[in-house]
Amino acid sequence: MRILLIGYGTMNQIVARLAAQAGHEIAGVISSGETDYPVFQNIDDADADVAIDFSNPERILPLLEQDFKTPLVVATTGQKEDIVAALKERSGSAPVFFSANMSYGVHVLNNLLKEALNQLADFDLEFVERHHNKKVDAPSGTLVKLLDTALESRDGSYPVYDRSQANHQRGTGEIGVSAIRGGTIVGEHEAIFAGLDEVIELKHIAQSKDIFANGAIKAAESLINKENGFYDYNNIF
Amino acid sequence: MRILLIGYGTMNQIVARLAAQAGHEIAGVISSGETDYPVFQNIDDADADVAIDFSNPERILPLLEQDFKTPLVVATTGQKEDIVAALKERSGSAPVFFSANMSYGVHVLNNLLKEALNQLADFDLEFVERHHNKKVDAPSGTLVKLLDTALESRDGSYPVYDRSQANHQRGTGEIGVSAIRGGTIVGEHEAIFAGLDEVIELKHIAQSKDIFANGAIKAAESLINKENGFYDYNNIF
Amino acid sequence: MRILLIGYGTMNQIVARLAAQAGHEIAGVISSGETDYPVFQNIDDADADVAIDFSNPERILPLLEQDFKTPLVVATTGQKEDIVAALKERSGSAPVFFSANMSYGVHVLNNLLKEALNQLADFDLEFVERHHNKKVDAPSGTLVKLLDTALESRDGSYPVYDRSQANHQRGTGEIGVSAIRGGTIVGEHEAIFAGLDEVIELKHIAQSKDIFANGAIKAAESLINKENGFYDYNNIF
Amino acid sequence: MRILLIGYGTMNQIVARLAAQAGHEIAGVISSGETDYPVFQNIDDADADVAIDFSNPERILPLLEQDFKTPLVVATTGQKEDIVAALKERSGSAPVFFSANMSYGVHVLNNLLKEALNQLADFDLEFVERHHNKKVDAPSGTLVKLLDTALESRDGSYPVYDRSQANHQRGTGEIGVSAIRGGTIVGEHEAIFAGLDEVIELKHIAQSKDIFANGAIKAAESLINKENGFYDYNNIF
Repeated sequence: MRILLIGYGTMNQIVARLAAQAGHEIAGVISSGETDYPVFQNIDDADADVAIDFSNPERILPLLEQDFKTPLVVATTGQKEDIVAALKERSGSAPVFFSANMSYGVHVLNNLLKEALNQLADFDLEFVERHHNKKVDAPSGTLVKLLDTALESRDGSYPVYDRSQANHQRGTGEIGVSAIRGGTIVGEHEAIFAGLDEVIELKHIAQSKDIFANGAIKAAESLINKENGFYDYNNIF
Repeated sequence: MRILLIGYGTMNQIVARLAAQAGHEIAGVISSGETDYPVFQNIDDADADVAIDFSNPERILPLLEQDFKTPLVVATTGQKEDIVAALKERSGSAPVFFSANMSYGVHVLNNLLKEALNQLADFDLEFVERHHNKKVDAPSGTLVKLLDTALESRDGSYPVYDRSQANHQRGTGEIGVSAIRGGTIVGEHEAIFAGLDEVIELKHIAQSKDIFANGAIKAAESLINKENGFYDYNNIF
Repeated sequence: MRILLIGYGTMNQIVARLAAQAGHEIAGVISSGETDYPVFQNIDDADADVAIDFSNPERILPLLEQDFKTPLVVATTGQKEDIVAALKERSGSAPVFFSANMSYGVHVLNNLLKEALNQLADFDLEFVERHHNKKVDAPSGTLVKLLDTALESRDGSYPVYDRSQANHQRGTGEIGVSAIRGGTIVGEHEAIFAGLDEVIELKHIAQSKDIFANGAIKAAESLINKENGFYDYNNIF
Repeated sequence: MRILLIGYGTMNQIVARLAAQAGHEIAGVISSGETDYPVFQNIDDADADVAIDFSNPERILPLLEQDFKTPLVVATTGQKEDIVAALKERSGSAPVFFSANMSYGVHVLNNLLKEALNQLADFDLEFVERHHNKKVDAPSGTLVKLLDTALESRDGSYPVYDRSQANHQRGTGEIGVSAIRGGTIVGEHEAIFAGLDEVIELKHIAQSKDIFANGAIKAAESLINKENGFYDYNNIF
């Protein structure tokens, strides 16, 4: 598989390394930074089998203004709605894939969470995430996504971020959200379902940023065999 | 709900206590031991809404030799095939329910495991269970059930119980099974899916035997509204 | 060992059951409630080897106004300073023991925490506790005790209970405190030390209130061989 | 701090990277492989403040045959007794440090384990470790070290690696040892103390091999201020 990299920051440098290990070839990059690969201006220029984007809205949005035929995996975060809208417009001429979190495992965790929400309707639900001490936002974007899944499933539920000021029993609709920060922890997310004398836990542990690059490559491998259209983790495999 | 208890050992004494807390009434027992409840000989004698059995094959099998109309939940372990066969024969005249593990949470764990097996086909899978230091069998019956789910899903897979004697890398088909014993731990079961730089864990923790009694009561509550037939955790709710 | 029970609520009923299992004898109770045991008014009246108190300040404080000779284990919570002061005054005529948390394991966790604080001075520290959904206070009294241990050890440290409103990196002095609530979880406390690419976790899991009764019995077994004086978990064994 | 690297494989390349981040300088290497650093033959040749060895017995043992003055940190595994003997002989002319596991956190875990063994004498103890699917030995060298600590502390104790063939209750002297293998898990070690209705867990999680390089650098930073002598993690800080 010949891959065009859009952006050549930390993430696409990891994509380049992992793609090489998996026997793929880097056809070139669309980037203004330094690189040893051929540099291109437009998605179809590189004659690649697929393009993988880990850049930013300023770079990817202009590229999406015209039709292209190369299958495209987009992992840029920020301006999500603009990007999805533009991708859907382009999905008539090429298969395109988008996910705000490229980790395949996090996607599976979210699926398992949905299933558990269906089957454990009368269990209390709480979320905990852990990340390194440099992270500025809390809870993490991934936890917000998991929480959305839970809030949609449970009528009248609401998140609780701090119990130290309250002095009452847990409300039925509460969904506790805790954010632990320390050291260089890459990222952990846990859903805890607590019922009458039994607890069920679902947990995802990330060891490195490789999982995001790896998720993009796996999506790309699948995307090149798809018909034109818009794909995400719910319909790609 | 008026409940007839078949057997009056540890488990059905817990059923009696939890049923009372949930507003149900004990109609009587079928038991040779001492009890303050009315004692009956046959399932239909007590005019109960449902019967819950936590006894043994010697007690329940003879009771299943003739038709009855009272909905029946059977949680006896041992001679599973004989009991299921007898129940299926009786399922024309009454709704009957059977499960080898009455914990609803363990049933859900097994469902989530199936889903995870589908979605994490290239992740390594390992199981760990923990129980108290009086337990004589290892791994637990519940772990054997979870393992069966995994073996069915993965062609060419096989359990590995001891790695201390081997001196080679993990085989692709290996499913490691570890049994931890200590103190008064009631029961924990964990499935670990380990992939490239990410791990997904599914875990069930039992705090007391109440969960088995509670599962039987929940099944009974659902069973009394069912048509005649054979039910288990896959079709009761 | 002949034990006098002071108070006969939930906890001392558990003490009675566990003491019987361990081969001890209940000499009687000091209590206004119903009981099958002989009832006494003063600590020395029962001719017991030891007295175990799980009552309340209103009951125990008057009993401490005069000297007595029976070794005494006090586990009443509330008015801690008054009780400790009274016990110290009485410690000339009898060996007396006091702990605000009778779980021996929690005491050990606190000791291990002190040791870890000494050896992991440059690791970030975070605490998490889990309890059932009926608990009204958060964090738990035990977590407050563990936090005090940490705050004393780390100059300039301070607890952080909610990160959802902040938008900055973790401060060096932060000690995150999270309280999870759900189902019937008895009680779990965890200290997480996160450093450069390694994490050390210390965790205590309570399965039932038996641990508090058991801690009192163990303290009593040791106390009856001690000279007159004031004892706690730091000098009893 | 000017550092001489002995060996320039995976580990010392990580040392070079982390040392640079910490403001240290690489004075050169003793290595037969390709490198951009000056190459030396003997430990004192580089005029370094300290030497860090991550090589193999074939390389380090000959270097230890003569006296040298440069403080030396040795992290080579294999032929441990020969290396320690040689280092002790050289410790009259230079401060030398040796550890079979360079992770500082694992050293702390072992210390906490000792403390827990003292205080939890009647709790059942079990060990679990997790590593990647390429590891050939089980249990890990680190677990063997933790196990040795436990066996020394508990008279009559013995390891049990497989319970699937037995059909009896846990023996009092048993110390269960489980090895989980999967994916790319870097390394986790856990000690589980299980008693009457309470469990205490001590756990170390490694996220990358950086912890071993980092441990060597920390030891080196301390070693350069020491007098001549033999040091390990028990007396270096």
